[in-house]
Amino acid sequence: MPLHAFSVETRQPSKDSEAVYFINDGIFYRPEDFIQKLQEINTLNAIERDSYGEGATVEKLLNKFKEITGKESAVYLPSGTLANQLAISVLCGDKTKAFVQETSHVYRDEGDAAQTLYNKRLIPLAPGKTYFTLEELQESVQYHQDNEAFVGAIGVVSIETPVRRTFNQAVPLSEIKRISAWCKEQGYKMHLDGARLHMATAFTHSTVKEYASYFDTVYMCLYKYLGATGGAVLCGDKAIIDQMHHLIKIHGGGIFTNWPSAAMALHHLNNVDEVMAKVIAKSNEFMQQMKPLKGLKFIPFENGTNQFNVAVDKTIDAHKLSSRLRAEHNIIFGQPREDGFFKVKMNPTLLRRDNKKIYDAFKEAIVFAKI
Amino acid sequence: MPLHAFSVETRQPSKDSEAVYFINDGIFYRPEDFIQKLQEINTLNAIERDSYGEGATVEKLLNKFKEITGKESAVYLPSGTLANQLAISVLCGDKTKAFVQETSHVYRDEGDAAQTLYNKRLIPLAPGKTYFTLEELQESVQYHQDNEAFVGAIGVVSIETPVRRTFNQAVPLSEIKRISAWCKEQGYKMHLDGARLHMATAFTHSTVKEYASYFDTVYMCLYKYLGATGGAVLCGDKAIIDQMHHLIKIHGGGIFTNWPSAAMALHHLNNVDEVMAKVIAKSNEFMQQMKPLKGLKFIPFENGTNQFNVAVDKTIDAHKLSSRLRAEHNIIFGQPREDGFFKVKMNPTLLRRDNKKIYDAFKEAIVFAKI
Amino acid sequence: MPLHAFSVETRQPSKDSEAVYFINDGIFYRPEDFIQKLQEINTLNAIERDSYGEGATVEKLLNKFKEITGKESAVYLPSGTLANQLAISVLCGDKTKAFVQETSHVYRDEGDAAQTLYNKRLIPLAPGKTYFTLEELQESVQYHQDNEAFVGAIGVVSIETPVRRTFNQAVPLSEIKRISAWCKEQGYKMHLDGARLHMATAFTHSTVKEYASYFDTVYMCLYKYLGATGGAVLCGDKAIIDQMHHLIKIHGGGIFTNWPSAAMALHHLNNVDEVMAKVIAKSNEFMQQMKPLKGLKFIPFENGTNQFNVAVDKTIDAHKLSSRLRAEHNIIFGQPREDGFFKVKMNPTLLRRDNKKIYDAFKEAIVFAKI
Amino acid sequence: MPLHAFSVETRQPSKDSEAVYFINDGIFYRPEDFIQKLQEINTLNAIERDSYGEGATVEKLLNKFKEITGKESAVYLPSGTLANQLAISVLCGDKTKAFVQETSHVYRDEGDAAQTLYNKRLIPLAPGKTYFTLEELQESVQYHQDNEAFVGAIGVVSIETPVRRTFNQAVPLSEIKRISAWCKEQGYKMHLDGARLHMATAFTHSTVKEYASYFDTVYMCLYKYLGATGGAVLCGDKAIIDQMHHLIKIHGGGIFTNWPSAAMALHHLNNVDEVMAKVIAKSNEFMQQMKPLKGLKFIPFENGTNQFNVAVDKTIDAHKLSSRLRAEHNIIFGQPREDGFFKVKMNPTLLRRDNKKIYDAFKEAIVFAKI
Repeated sequence: MPLHAFSVETRQPSKDSEAVYFINDGIFYRPEDFIQKLQEINTLNAIERDSYGEGATVEKLLNKFKEITGKESAVYLPSGTLANQLAISVLCGDKTKAFVQETSHVYRDEGDAAQTLYNKRLIPLAPGKTYFTLEELQESVQYHQDNEAFVGAIGVVSIETPVRRTFNQAVPLSEIKRISAWCKEQGYKMHLDGARLHMATAFTHSTVKEYASYFDTVYMCLYKYLGATGGAVLCGDKAIIDQMHHLIKIHGGGIFTNWPSAAMALHHLNNVDEVMAKVIAKSNEFMQQMKPLKGLKFIPFENGTNQFNVAVDKTIDAHKLSSRLRAEHNIIFGQPREDGFFKVKMNPTLLRRDNKKIYDAFKEAIVFAKI
Repeated sequence: MPLHAFSVETRQPSKDSEAVYFINDGIFYRPEDFIQKLQEINTLNAIERDSYGEGATVEKLLNKFKEITGKESAVYLPSGTLANQLAISVLCGDKTKAFVQETSHVYRDEGDAAQTLYNKRLIPLAPGKTYFTLEELQESVQYHQDNEAFVGAIGVVSIETPVRRTFNQAVPLSEIKRISAWCKEQGYKMHLDGARLHMATAFTHSTVKEYASYFDTVYMCLYKYLGATGGAVLCGDKAIIDQMHHLIKIHGGGIFTNWPSAAMALHHLNNVDEVMAKVIAKSNEFMQQMKPLKGLKFIPFENGTNQFNVAVDKTIDAHKLSSRLRAEHNIIFGQPREDGFFKVKMNPTLLRRDNKKIYDAFKEAIVFAKI
Repeated sequence: MPLHAFSVETRQPSKDSEAVYFINDGIFYRPEDFIQKLQEINTLNAIERDSYGEGATVEKLLNKFKEITGKESAVYLPSGTLANQLAISVLCGDKTKAFVQETSHVYRDEGDAAQTLYNKRLIPLAPGKTYFTLEELQESVQYHQDNEAFVGAIGVVSIETPVRRTFNQAVPLSEIKRISAWCKEQGYKMHLDGARLHMATAFTHSTVKEYASYFDTVYMCLYKYLGATGGAVLCGDKAIIDQMHHLIKIHGGGIFTNWPSAAMALHHLNNVDEVMAKVIAKSNEFMQQMKPLKGLKFIPFENGTNQFNVAVDKTIDAHKLSSRLRAEHNIIFGQPREDGFFKVKMNPTLLRRDNKKIYDAFKEAIVFAKI
Repeated sequence: MPLHAFSVETRQPSKDSEAVYFINDGIFYRPEDFIQKLQEINTLNAIERDSYGEGATVEKLLNKFKEITGKESAVYLPSGTLANQLAISVLCGDKTKAFVQETSHVYRDEGDAAQTLYNKRLIPLAPGKTYFTLEELQESVQYHQDNEAFVGAIGVVSIETPVRRTFNQAVPLSEIKRISAWCKEQGYKMHLDGARLHMATAFTHSTVKEYASYFDTVYMCLYKYLGATGGAVLCGDKAIIDQMHHLIKIHGGGIFTNWPSAAMALHHLNNVDEVMAKVIAKSNEFMQQMKPLKGLKFIPFENGTNQFNVAVDKTIDAHKLSSRLRAEHNIIFGQPREDGFFKVKMNPTLLRRDNKKIYDAFKEAIVFAKI
């Protein structure tokens, strides 16, 4: 196909709502699309206004989260940082130590909040890696018990899965089960940072309920793949969640009304599992189709979920490829990283276009970007 | 006009967007109306997505707040509680005491946050009253300096105006000026809880900039009369506001994107002064019109703003009156309080209908509610 | 007796250990006397070295405190401030409010510690007075429950008796009983700041055990009348006191060894009740003797303990009187206060000299100080 | 010499004040000896009573510390934990991160205080080792700046020397100089945990003043080798130390009077350098003398100070040797550790007896303990 012919075909101004993104975990609506989507949602089922995160559409959302996690209670919070920090601090109670992955959001992306505001000491395990094993946890517990004069007690073990900082790799469910069983024996509480938990469940063929069963509290995010503008939900036993309302208030997280995020998240939550299944099937098919096409190689991560390394042949100008995909095909493919790979993410925007069309777009762009 | 005739005329289902509310300080949109309004705003001027409260439409909003307050910097926060607490705690620095009105939101409606999370001691002044005088402040300062063995230093004097708990009465600007001048001499910082500051400026014929000039930090609310679903803005010197970003993050107030509230608030902020002026003019005219109508008496508060006591004659069933206004005239008038008065608030919903029509509605309802 | 004769008789350098003090609650040893006293104690019963407030002589002291308070556990702390603050904060747990006397040490003399370090809100009752009644407490509880939007829960009611800031007046035991019974019903915990508790027990003819029975925790001071250089003991249920060791450590209150204070306090604690009884009997007799002597009038306080107002006749130069007592008679009588009265305190130094001799000293000094 | 003859000669009850201890850094007085020593000190120079750590003998002590550290101000605290924690937290100000040795007291022996009470995050360097190099510090700083989403700022670098957990090995002064120079450039403050600083100065032939010059604050201990029952002194700029008084108070560290520890510490501080020099000379001579004696080998540590590994020949029963030394010779030699070595410490108790006599004691005990 000559370049000019292809170009002619696509030279309408590209719409963001039709773009295929290889760079996010879900759909990040532009304002225009968000408003339109909300309107559709409202037409189907009138959205009702909550009061400070309670009642109406927020309550429906919380009920849905209780259902999928199998937990007794759920509470709405403005951010995952607040959800993680309050969960760890309330589960710890008077105990001071919490074990976390060194690569976790709690340890690396929450501004030293645990140590400077929530009065907890985080002990990082498995530096640079996706997860720690039960044995690594036990060794560290032993070390801290043996080697401190005044031992601050251990309250919580927190696990994030999948881990954003390690390319959305998932903690093996088998390891979670072992850790959870041992922690139960020891009386340590468990918190799950499940900001992207549906990534883990879909790619490990498990369920939110199964994951949640190994933890005392589960945080899930409303905007990473559920379309909201923000917000988080924390699930757990009633005795724990009941304490959150006062704590959210004093931390300034009590927002007047939260129905836009709640309605949007609820809408996507209702079919997230099916959508994820489709994304997996379609992305597998797509990568299969791409194989004969020389130049791009999709390489899965160990314990990977929706993220892949993409190796670009040296005969192709990677930046030119990416620019072409965006400009001509409304495909956002990102940029190669320090290690030379594109880090691409499969998400529901893949469902917006036939694989054949996406394949054709890549084919054209690769030719264009040949050195 | 016979009752039945009137009824026939209005028996379409009443729309909330056409209702006249005598019970709020501004418009609280229903989801449907909020979405439609956002769409209108976006059509006029494309809304852009901020990232964690920075850039795009949020930046425009913050610039507008800097302009009207005359302050160097502004920051977006999820709630007024966070804005008040962070302002007081950062302005205090290592000092421990902050003086506040006993009737203020900071003292009574923020869950003991100052003392239990932000490490500050609030000292309440003027119990049950709208404001404390300079002399009352000085006396309390003296008392605490003379009568404590280890004196925690005084950091901040905080003033809320108008005061919700005292029926939106305003602190006299003259008193604010005196207090501010003395505090400057003493090295005490000043915080303004201006959640409803445009109520105060409109009814005291002053400006936000004038009020703000007496304070180091000013908090203003985005949803009480600016239509947003939540959110707050804090303005002040750059050196103070720059510290807020990290603190907002660790308190869990960093929300992914905030354009719905920002766009809505910015839209209303652009003409809030004109709207307020119209509300005042129209409500004055309306109360004038109502005078000849026996049975309802509108009584202003001392230092009052948009709120009035309404005395209902004993020959009228107050609850029946209120029900009738809502059912037949789409007017929300509230319920009488313990002291026998309706507490009504004048707000922009008054602009939705001719005074004559509102007058007629009351006239009809009064006849209907006669005992 | 001519002045010169008297002077000749007493012109040996006066010894502090023989002085009669009308200004403290107990004996404040000078270093020389303290060392000698420790040596005597050690000779009678070898003092043993504790390790960080545990074991040896400290353990004996703690056992004695458990015995006299009837409480399960006791812990050594460096200061009453730490004892009060930790007790209130641990008894409160997650609850935020503690009710205290406005005149109490906790409220006025601990540097805003509760609000700025221990995350508790103190609510002062009965400003300027020795105690609050049950009804005053109930009214304040009601007020706070009715008038706050997000109610921080009530954890503790703290009572100090006797109250130093109100001239060692005691809270009536009958009021304590009523308050305690009601608080038990409400689930509020009770803390007793008994820094000078033996003053209260001696003068109200009760026992430490009786007082302690109305409270969850009891703090008692080791230096105010037990001779130590510092230190405090906190008694209560094992579940509460067990938490203190870690908290004392992190607050920096874990001192290497504490036997000097412990040995000294234990020595005096063993016979404090008898000594107090003697002080009361002897001081009553003394004041009786003084009655005929024109010029000084001893006036008890309502609910008073060991402190008295002394009115000095206008014909006597009060300062000259005080100077004469000190210089010639080794009697420390203090200085008149703003209200014109000497505030004198009866304590064990009174037992150092015959009442007759003390009487004679006053007689001489009064003559000397006549205007 | 036949065993029985020797035994007869020493069978007086051994006095602790004549014992040679190979297990502490200084003299830990038994109560009896402490009292007697205080009496001697008081006889030479009357001890005066301070009030809450201010004035009198405490002031003399603080002045002496100002003199030897060359710092502007000094303050008395009850414990090293409080001194370290307050220094780090005040030097940090609003910044959240402090770098410390993983083996340090601050990190391992203060009950997670920094993270759970003082709102600071400690980042441990050089696990298991005595010190980190400048390059290791720089690498960690870089890592934390590059790899966190919301970077909590770096406030303090804290160094302990010598390090108790690594057998009193000293941080090389040259490394301290490099680190200090770089930190100054970066605006990071420096804290010295000099609990045993005179160990470091004596064995590295430097002075407290030189060490102190590289740091903003210096903590020194009063009981580890200065004979007190407890207490610490923190030195630094006036602006920093002035903040401590209020903080000590609210942490409960304000003790009524502290002259026993202050007088004892001051007494020993006056000649600590000479005493240390004598200990070094005498211990060197002693270890030289011991060389020909087969069976015990004294092995210095790298960067060692007063501590040595002692290897015991396999032909000797180590426990029997130790028991014999204690029972017959009033020499406390400790017990072999997991690694097979005795860890012995040279201290002023060595000066209590002629090296020849100590040598003879060992000779006898070795024979006795031969397997």
